[in-house]
Amino acid sequence: MPELRQNYATKEWVIIATERAKRPEELATRRAPKNIASRVATCPFCPGNESKTPPEILRILAEGTDLWQVRVVPNKFAALSSTSEPVRTVHRTRRSIEGFGVHDVIVDTPDHSHTTALMTDAHLANVLRAYKSRYDALSRDPRIAHITIFKNHGVDAGTSLEHPHSQLIATPVSSFQVRQRVQEALRHYDDFGNCMFCQMIEEELQEKVRVVLKTEHFVVMELFAAPTPFGTHIYPLRHTASFGDISPAEIVDLARTLRTVMAKLYYGLGDPDFNYTIRSAPSESTGSKYFHWYLSVIPRLTRMAGFELGSGMFINTVLPEAAAEFLRNVQVQPAAGVGGVS
Amino acid sequence: MPELRQNYATKEWVIIATERAKRPEELATRRAPKNIASRVATCPFCPGNESKTPPEILRILAEGTDLWQVRVVPNKFAALSSTSEPVRTVHRTRRSIEGFGVHDVIVDTPDHSHTTALMTDAHLANVLRAYKSRYDALSRDPRIAHITIFKNHGVDAGTSLEHPHSQLIATPVSSFQVRQRVQEALRHYDDFGNCMFCQMIEEELQEKVRVVLKTEHFVVMELFAAPTPFGTHIYPLRHTASFGDISPAEIVDLARTLRTVMAKLYYGLGDPDFNYTIRSAPSESTGSKYFHWYLSVIPRLTRMAGFELGSGMFINTVLPEAAAEFLRNVQVQPAAGVGGVS
Repeated sequence: MPELRQNYATKEWVIIATERAKRPEELATRRAPKNIASRVATCPFCPGNESKTPPEILRILAEGTDLWQVRVVPNKFAALSSTSEPVRTVHRTRRSIEGFGVHDVIVDTPDHSHTTALMTDAHLANVLRAYKSRYDALSRDPRIAHITIFKNHGVDAGTSLEHPHSQLIATPVSSFQVRQRVQEALRHYDDFGNCMFCQMIEEELQEKVRVVLKTEHFVVMELFAAPTPFGTHIYPLRHTASFGDISPAEIVDLARTLRTVMAKLYYGLGDPDFNYTIRSAPSESTGSKYFHWYLSVIPRLTRMAGFELGSGMFINTVLPEAAAEFLRNVQVQPAAGVGGVS
Repeated sequence: MPELRQNYATKEWVIIATERAKRPEELATRRAPKNIASRVATCPFCPGNESKTPPEILRILAEGTDLWQVRVVPNKFAALSSTSEPVRTVHRTRRSIEGFGVHDVIVDTPDHSHTTALMTDAHLANVLRAYKSRYDALSRDPRIAHITIFKNHGVDAGTSLEHPHSQLIATPVSSFQVRQRVQEALRHYDDFGNCMFCQMIEEELQEKVRVVLKTEHFVVMELFAAPTPFGTHIYPLRHTASFGDISPAEIVDLARTLRTVMAKLYYGLGDPDFNYTIRSAPSESTGSKYFHWYLSVIPRLTRMAGFELGSGMFINTVLPEAAAEFLRNVQVQPAAGVGGVS
């Protein structure tokens, strides 16, 4: 019997369609074995081609070497321009803003053939430190309202460049969607006096069925009303609204946790195309008691069709409880400090 | 210089990224010539296989024959079940409803190799009549809150069956997205005393640059803040909130208009994968003065990536004004009564 479930945070309904259910294994990507060189002469992100990118903003060296492990550069094909100003125009029903904004590329690794699932925890921690460094710097710019950090892996996830990289886009507006979610969180706070995410985390840790793993500082879970199969959220256990508030110890733990999640997807579902994104409070709400930042991992196993586009509702063919059980059971290389469900 | 534009109806911001701009021709699909048989022995929607679908709900005969031209049947792999009841459960932060709903398939044509762009206007009018018949019947069911009619064409648009068909899903809830849009429309009505869509239509007809064509009863336009390239809206000129209010004369005109739009995309962009969907007021608001139904055509020329998933904002690489000009200039077989921009 199918079921409609409401996402408590976004208020959107999702159809969990058990009649169409596939076993998790059936969704696994059947990817032809890749034979990518670790260095590609024409790739602007490979070592030796540093001059092909705009001037570097930040580099983090591999430990004990003078070679870069992570680089941050402006996107050569930026969606927004950092040299303009966010001037607003209102003309009848048309509102526009000059395309001010910042669009960074974070080159995750010098190795063209690498992938997040197979990185060392120490390496991924450096990627996260690069995110935080840029997040912090841009949060201080009064022209910036919101910062989105994301990664596209594979053609189905919208990437055009194969070399592993992440991106950051800072915009002079918060999206309507982000504002709505903040307002819903505030409404819950008004009604119940606590953070809705903290409450969901507490309930899920008691229920256990949708929890994939818990570490010292983070919990990984499938949402009760996950819109897509294996959509996986990583929440900090400590209430913080902004990714900018992550502590050095939390960064180390998040690297281990994210790498473990990525490895479970990589081995369990055959290296699926995926996006991940950090959902953080808008700049003006960084201290908020009601919003809670998180990292969302979205394997791109299905396609949005007309129903999703026409209604905003999603049909998920995998029961979130079954996805959580599947991911709990995927064995990956043990990483020190990452336990199972406690 | 890029520009941020706000969709006045949805309030969402869109980045129009001219630095990344492609010419419309560059987005055209390079599809290998198809050689599909007009009848496929294993296809459940082909004539002769009518017993492979659940019992027929409706059939419309081809004029002057006793052969069906359009059939409506229950979806064999329905996302929702029409035999349950919409019983609600609230448990802590978890809200769910038993999966009551209706999921129809509209078989658009007996011809497996056919496509909307190449149908006769009379044939497409019968498809629209099938939509309206089911829309009307389901609108009267007090358990139904909202009805979404949509079509998926091609793998990138999420279709799994090649035979041309549309779908209808009737749900016991309105999605959060639909409710938000209705509320924004109401807010505009409170502020200005008119329908925001009627006002946008009036402004666009004066501005002309984003109008693709205008007929007796409809206007076809690219949105000022279109989230995706060639996302095209067809609005009735007469204010009506619900698709159920379409008149017989309007159905005939909509068939001509929709077929013209589909043919412009087919010839101009090389038969791209697409979705179309009818956005209509929820059942409870069918008489509303502030909502306005429309048909949205979404060619699937680009993929949603991490930025879109992480922020709700879209990056559109084609200027809507350039898309409108391109579509205006695509010559298609003239169809009686369809004029250019007036």
